[in-house]
Amino acid sequence: MRLLILSIVLLINSASYAQDEKTLRTLYDLALTKSEAYENLRDLCKNIGARLSGSAEADSAVVWAQNTLTDLGLDTVYLQEIMVPHWERGKREKVYFFNEKGKNTLKVCALGGSISTGLNQFIKGRVIEVHSIEELNALADSIVKGSVIFFNRPMDPKKISTFSAYGSCVDQRYSGATEASKKGAIAVLIRSMNLRNDDFPHTGSMGYEEGTDSIPAFAVSTNDANYLSENIKIYTDLELTLKSHCKTFPDKISYNVIGEIKGSKYPNEFITVGGHLDSWDVGEGAQDDGAGVVQSIEVLHLLKLMKIKPKHTLRVVLFMNEENGNRGGLGYAEKAASENEKHLMALESDRGGFSPRGFSVNGTQKQLEEIKKWKSLFEPYGIHEFTMGFAGVDINPLKDDKICLIGLSPDSQRYFDHHHSDNDTFEEVNKRELELGAASMASLVYLIDKYWLY
Amino acid sequence: MRLLILSIVLLINSASYAQDEKTLRTLYDLALTKSEAYENLRDLCKNIGARLSGSAEADSAVVWAQNTLTDLGLDTVYLQEIMVPHWERGKREKVYFFNEKGKNTLKVCALGGSISTGLNQFIKGRVIEVHSIEELNALADSIVKGSVIFFNRPMDPKKISTFSAYGSCVDQRYSGATEASKKGAIAVLIRSMNLRNDDFPHTGSMGYEEGTDSIPAFAVSTNDANYLSENIKIYTDLELTLKSHCKTFPDKISYNVIGEIKGSKYPNEFITVGGHLDSWDVGEGAQDDGAGVVQSIEVLHLLKLMKIKPKHTLRVVLFMNEENGNRGGLGYAEKAASENEKHLMALESDRGGFSPRGFSVNGTQKQLEEIKKWKSLFEPYGIHEFTMGFAGVDINPLKDDKICLIGLSPDSQRYFDHHHSDNDTFEEVNKRELELGAASMASLVYLIDKYWLY
Repeated sequence: MRLLILSIVLLINSASYAQDEKTLRTLYDLALTKSEAYENLRDLCKNIGARLSGSAEADSAVVWAQNTLTDLGLDTVYLQEIMVPHWERGKREKVYFFNEKGKNTLKVCALGGSISTGLNQFIKGRVIEVHSIEELNALADSIVKGSVIFFNRPMDPKKISTFSAYGSCVDQRYSGATEASKKGAIAVLIRSMNLRNDDFPHTGSMGYEEGTDSIPAFAVSTNDANYLSENIKIYTDLELTLKSHCKTFPDKISYNVIGEIKGSKYPNEFITVGGHLDSWDVGEGAQDDGAGVVQSIEVLHLLKLMKIKPKHTLRVVLFMNEENGNRGGLGYAEKAASENEKHLMALESDRGGFSPRGFSVNGTQKQLEEIKKWKSLFEPYGIHEFTMGFAGVDINPLKDDKICLIGLSPDSQRYFDHHHSDNDTFEEVNKRELELGAASMASLVYLIDKYWLY
Repeated sequence: MRLLILSIVLLINSASYAQDEKTLRTLYDLALTKSEAYENLRDLCKNIGARLSGSAEADSAVVWAQNTLTDLGLDTVYLQEIMVPHWERGKREKVYFFNEKGKNTLKVCALGGSISTGLNQFIKGRVIEVHSIEELNALADSIVKGSVIFFNRPMDPKKISTFSAYGSCVDQRYSGATEASKKGAIAVLIRSMNLRNDDFPHTGSMGYEEGTDSIPAFAVSTNDANYLSENIKIYTDLELTLKSHCKTFPDKISYNVIGEIKGSKYPNEFITVGGHLDSWDVGEGAQDDGAGVVQSIEVLHLLKLMKIKPKHTLRVVLFMNEENGNRGGLGYAEKAASENEKHLMALESDRGGFSPRGFSVNGTQKQLEEIKKWKSLFEPYGIHEFTMGFAGVDINPLKDDKICLIGLSPDSQRYFDHHHSDNDTFEEVNKRELELGAASMASLVYLIDKYWLY
C-alpha cells in the first residue's frame, strides 16, 4: 500500500515536471516568435528617448507605459503618485587644459545632481590625480586647497562580474565631491565607470553632505582620463578649466505605472515584476532600463498569450526615479506596508537586456533552495546561475523576512560600455537576448505562482 | 595504515585542486589585464581585413601570423604548404526588379564559389519563392524552367542554439543552386543565414554537382528577402534581373601557420589549439574567425606569461581555407597521420569571440566525464556547458577513436548577425568577452596537459 502511494506520488510529480517543461518551452517559443518587447523598446527609445525624473520625457514615458499596459488588456492599470527630484544638465559641459600643443578639450559630462560652476562661469584650478578617497585624505589640505581633484581609479578588470567591479569603484563618483570639498578642492573630475577605453563620459548619481560646501562634479571618458593622466605626468601644475550649467529645481509630481492581473485564488497576495521607467538624460536608456521595462511588460503579455491565469495577483510595476532618488521604489514599498499587502516575491530586471545567465536571490536560504529545484527546467535555456545576491534597487525597499526578492542576471560583460552614457541606445540591444530574458522572467513567475509556499 | 594512505591521497588531491584553482584564477587575471588578443585582432582586421583563400590578403595574413607567433618566442614556428581554391567575387553584384513604384534594387552578394551571370551580362527570369528543396521538387519542371528560384526559409528562431538553427537551414544555401538547376532554373537567390532582420547580405559556401549545369547563386539580406516576398504576393510574374562577376581561378599555394612549445616530458605527443586564418571576402573576418585565431595565439602567450612548461608538445595551428574547402584542416590531419603523430586533444575556437559558455566535446563518453570533473574549477568564470557535440571544421579531420576534439562554445545569440557579412568587423567584438574565451581555452589546455590519460 505504501509502495502504491509512493508510486502515485512519483507519477504525479513526474507528470507535473513534464508539464512544467512543456510550459517553459512554450514561453520561450512565444518570446522568440511573438514577443512585443523589442518593438516596445524601439518605441520607448526612439520616440521618447532619455527620460530623467522630472523631465517632459519622463512624463511622456508615464503616458507611454500606461497606454502600453492598457493595450495588454490587464484587469487594471493605474498610476501611483510620487514626488521626484528635478535636476537638469542644461547645456553640455566644457573642460579643457593647455599644454605645449595647445588646447585640449576633454569628453566630459556633469554627474547627476551636481551644482554648476556658476552662471556662465568658468572655474580653473590645478589638477591633482588620486586613485581613491584614502589617497586624497593622505594629502595635506594646503595642497588640495583650490585644486581640481581627478579621481582616476579604474574599475577592476579582473572581476568576472562587472557589477562587482562597479561596486568597488563607485565610491569615488558618489562621495568624491564631498570628500574633496572637505579639503578645499573647487571641483572633481571622475574617471567614467566603464571597463573599456572609449570616448563616452558616463554620468551617474552623486551626493553632497550637509554642512559641506557643494562643488561641481564631472565624469570624463576613460580615453580622456588616460590622456589627462599622461599629461599630468609630463606637465606639473597642469590647470583644468571647467564649465557646467546644471541646476536643481523643486521636486515634481511623477508616477509609478502599475498593471495587474488579478489572482484567481489569492487575489490579495502579490507577485511584483518590474524595471524602472526613468533613465539618465544621456543616450536613450535602452539597456538601463528600457530593457527591464519591456521585459516586465512582456512577462504579462506572454502569460496572457498562454492564457495562464495566475493564482496570486501579478503586478507589473514600472518604477519612476531609480536613477537619482529611488522615490518610486520607496513609495511602492511604503504603500504596500501601509495597506498591509502580502507580497510573495518581487522580480526586477535592471542589469541590461543581455543573454540571461540566472537569478540573483535576496531571500532566505530555504527560498534559494526551492528555486534551485527548478534548475534543470531552466538549463536548456542557458540559465545556470542561482545565487544569493542583490536583486534590484527598485524592489529593495520591499525587503522583510518573508518576501523573496529576485534579480534577473544577464551576462554582465558589456553592460558598463553603455551604462549612463550616449552609448546606451536601442541599436545596442540584441532582440533575441532581450527576448530570452523576458522568457526567463515569465518562467520564474509562472513557477513561483504555481508552487510557492509563503 | 589504509586510513593513513587514504588521508594522504585526499590531502594530495585537495592540494592539487587548490593549486589548479589558483592557476585558473591567474590565467583569467592575466587574460583580463595582459592579453594581446584584442590588439592582435585589431591589427589583423584593420591592417589586413577580409582574407579569402587565394587572395593577396590571405598571403598577408600568413606573414602576419608567422610574425606574431615568432614574436611570442615559441620553440619553433613554421608553415605547412597546402593548395587552396581561388575564387574572386569581382565587382559587387546587382539584383533588381520593377514594380509600379519603379526599380527596386536588392542588397545581395554572390555565394562563395558561384559562377557569374556571364561577362558583364544581366540575366532575367520570373522569380518563384520556395521554402525548402522539397517544396522546389514538388513543382513541375515546366514551371521552374527559365525561372529564378528564391529560397526564403528563415532560420528557426525557436532554437536556443543559433548553430542548430543554422544547421537546419543551410541546405538551401549549399545545395539550392544544384537542385534548382536540375529543374531548369537559371539562378537562385537565398535568404541570408541571419536570425534578425537587417540589411546585410551574408555569403557562404555552396557546391555544384558534377553532371548538373552550374547556375549563379546569390544571398539577399533578410530585410530585402521579406520585401521581395511581399512583392511576389502582390505582383504575380515578378521578374528579377541579376548580374554577378565572380570567377574561379586555378588553385594556389597557401599555408597553415604553426607554432610549437616543445613538451618537457612527451615531446612526441601533441595538443593542438587553433582557429582559421582565412575569412570570407566581406567584412573583416573578426568574429569568423579572427577571434579564434587571436584566442589560440593567446593560449600560448598566457602559458608563457605564467612560465608553464607543458609536458606534451603544444601546437597552435592557424588553419587556412576553412571557409571554402577545409584544405588546411585536411592537410594538417593528413600530415599528422602520415608522420604517425600521437594527438591527445585538439581544441578549436570558431564560434565567435562572445562570452564563453562551455565546451562542445567530440570524443568518448569517458573523455567527456573526465572533463566534467573540472566543472567546478570553471564555474566561477561562467563556464557551465560541457556537452557532446561538434568541435570544429578545421580539427574534424583529426578524428579517430582516441583523440578528443573540443570546441569552445561562446554565447551564440549574436553570431549570425555578423557571420559572412560586412557586419563582421573588429568593433563588434567585445574585449572582455574575447579575453574570457582565451582564458577558458588556456585553462582547459593546462588541465588536459596536466592530467590527461591517453
